[in-house]
Amino acid sequence: MMSEAASALALPIVVLADAPTDAAALVTRDVVLGSARSADDLAGLAARCDVMTFDHEQVDLDALGQLEHLGHRIRPGTQTLHMAVDKAVMRSTLEAAGIPVPAFALLAASERGEHLSAIASFADSHRWPIVVKSARGGYDGKGVWIVPSLEEAAPVLEKIEGDIVLEEYVSIDAELATLVVRRPGGQIASWPTVETAQIDGVCREVLVPGTLDPSVAEEAAELGRRVAELAQAVGVFAVELFWSNGTLLVNEVAARPHNSGHWTIDGSETSQFENHLRAVLDLPLGGTERTAAHVASVNVFGGPSATDPAEHLGEALSVKGARIHLYGKGARPGRKLGHVTVCGDTAGEVRARAWEAAEALGAVRPTQIELVEP
Amino acid sequence: MMSEAASALALPIVVLADAPTDAAALVTRDVVLGSARSADDLAGLAARCDVMTFDHEQVDLDALGQLEHLGHRIRPGTQTLHMAVDKAVMRSTLEAAGIPVPAFALLAASERGEHLSAIASFADSHRWPIVVKSARGGYDGKGVWIVPSLEEAAPVLEKIEGDIVLEEYVSIDAELATLVVRRPGGQIASWPTVETAQIDGVCREVLVPGTLDPSVAEEAAELGRRVAELAQAVGVFAVELFWSNGTLLVNEVAARPHNSGHWTIDGSETSQFENHLRAVLDLPLGGTERTAAHVASVNVFGGPSATDPAEHLGEALSVKGARIHLYGKGARPGRKLGHVTVCGDTAGEVRARAWEAAEALGAVRPTQIELVEP
Repeated sequence: MMSEAASALALPIVVLADAPTDAAALVTRDVVLGSARSADDLAGLAARCDVMTFDHEQVDLDALGQLEHLGHRIRPGTQTLHMAVDKAVMRSTLEAAGIPVPAFALLAASERGEHLSAIASFADSHRWPIVVKSARGGYDGKGVWIVPSLEEAAPVLEKIEGDIVLEEYVSIDAELATLVVRRPGGQIASWPTVETAQIDGVCREVLVPGTLDPSVAEEAAELGRRVAELAQAVGVFAVELFWSNGTLLVNEVAARPHNSGHWTIDGSETSQFENHLRAVLDLPLGGTERTAAHVASVNVFGGPSATDPAEHLGEALSVKGARIHLYGKGARPGRKLGHVTVCGDTAGEVRARAWEAAEALGAVRPTQIELVEP
Repeated sequence: MMSEAASALALPIVVLADAPTDAAALVTRDVVLGSARSADDLAGLAARCDVMTFDHEQVDLDALGQLEHLGHRIRPGTQTLHMAVDKAVMRSTLEAAGIPVPAFALLAASERGEHLSAIASFADSHRWPIVVKSARGGYDGKGVWIVPSLEEAAPVLEKIEGDIVLEEYVSIDAELATLVVRRPGGQIASWPTVETAQIDGVCREVLVPGTLDPSVAEEAAELGRRVAELAQAVGVFAVELFWSNGTLLVNEVAARPHNSGHWTIDGSETSQFENHLRAVLDLPLGGTERTAAHVASVNVFGGPSATDPAEHLGEALSVKGARIHLYGKGARPGRKLGHVTVCGDTAGEVRARAWEAAEALGAVRPTQIELVEP
């Protein structure tokens, strides 16, 4: 999707991809095969680019730090990336700045022998269940465990290699996400706050605006901008929040275009991908207003039969107003293969049509997500 | 721009390009170098594609006919292309169907000795000046001459190799274009009719809606659909019209996405490029409604200093609401390098901002195009 935005502005891009079948490699002329975890591959890419940026966080931070030291433009910089890559760094940084977060404790990898007693002590203060997170490497619900008792903590600890974050189990009334974009000099903008439906840590549906009072959305946007400034973000920076007992808590951050912002391609004046490119190139940002009263965006995951959604494109395109985005990935059950956005006048209508198109493409609507007749 | 639409739907495309620096080749992964005038190159492309389609008319029609005969899917088909490629075929076909066109006469290449007397006779019936067109190969005003007298006809005739179309010189009160999209089975849709500012046969500015009465726009759209059906069009089909003394006359047709429809990327529910792909793949068409009260789209041609518009991207992007599209072509005076679209509430405002951004990119606003303060 970033390639499409780059194409419109004739910005020449080079993609570092693990394989020629990677989604970005399929639609970009200039592809370098290699790994973002390899210092050599990152150095090879840096030598070909004026600016290096990212669409995922599985990167070698030390290698990027070296490149930054050598004068390469890495945007966002490693300071920002560190916060997005490491949940322990993120939680500590936010807490130190007075940003509301769930209660947490950090367990250093070096003190493995103390972990179980630390967990017992944390649960004493915050009651079971608690949330155990790997500080690094998690995404889409991976690397996060809800642990109901000390007995069940031990096998979880064995799955984690590095530092650990313990968190209180927050009762969630709604989940929000706010998307910010920031230039190197500090110019900042944010899109309207969205409400997301997360199931097992995976975003299934994005609604703009959500169902909460607009003042909550504005407070979330304000928090998002504070966090982006604190992180010295450059480019798009996403902040996911819990709405819990009348309070907003920052849950996660991402220093890149984010799934909760895919709706901006079809529903806002400037997409997150174009504004990300503008920001990392230090060009003026585009408007972030939404262009419809209601926007719904639904992720398409491979269903149990792993049907290729491309085989049902015609059925999906026949849904009025459905904006289909497929990523060209091989279909597997549970793999994110695309998304559908619908813009319209009412929340019920745009949700119903977005799900209709997503289901045509093979997505299975979770029972937790109920549709009201539009 | 078609590549961007294909990317969103994960439609795998192969581009036949004359050179690796061609605009489409710069942004497409799979490029075959070759010529659309070469039978071998067209056959090579056909062997790799389920459907072959076009973004220009400089094609070898005979070779395409052979491929069609062999069972390759050529969309639009050669019958449609013939009408778009050959102005003599187009004029005759439209006249035979009762579609209003300027008065014309055809001069066959084989009767070269009779041409001057035929011109004298045509001018007797329709008065000087007359318009002399090469039946094939013209675009953007090339291949069209306004001839004021018999003496000046002779050197023009020498420049033309094939068949010739003579036309009355129509007094033009406004120029319109209507964009139609049609599936193989006949499903048809059209975007709102636009008004264009043409200078020396080159489109400089597109306004949606135009300044004429909406009934004229609807009549133009209806004519456009009739012509597209007559041509058995598949994909996008553009019809350019003159508004002359209270009458609509069809001037030109194009069987491909068209410059007068670039505004649809940012100003309508489905872009001409996406709907062209949908149509040639026989997929359901997307909505063609405009999404703003007023849309202006301005072409960016290289100015006298041939500055690369990419060098001034920041200035252009700072214009509120300017949607910039650059084609990645080398800058030359008079070469079409990109376009700018602005959506908004009033015609004055969107025109002023579109020109502001285009001028930032190096375009020179012709004195014939005047802006009223928004």
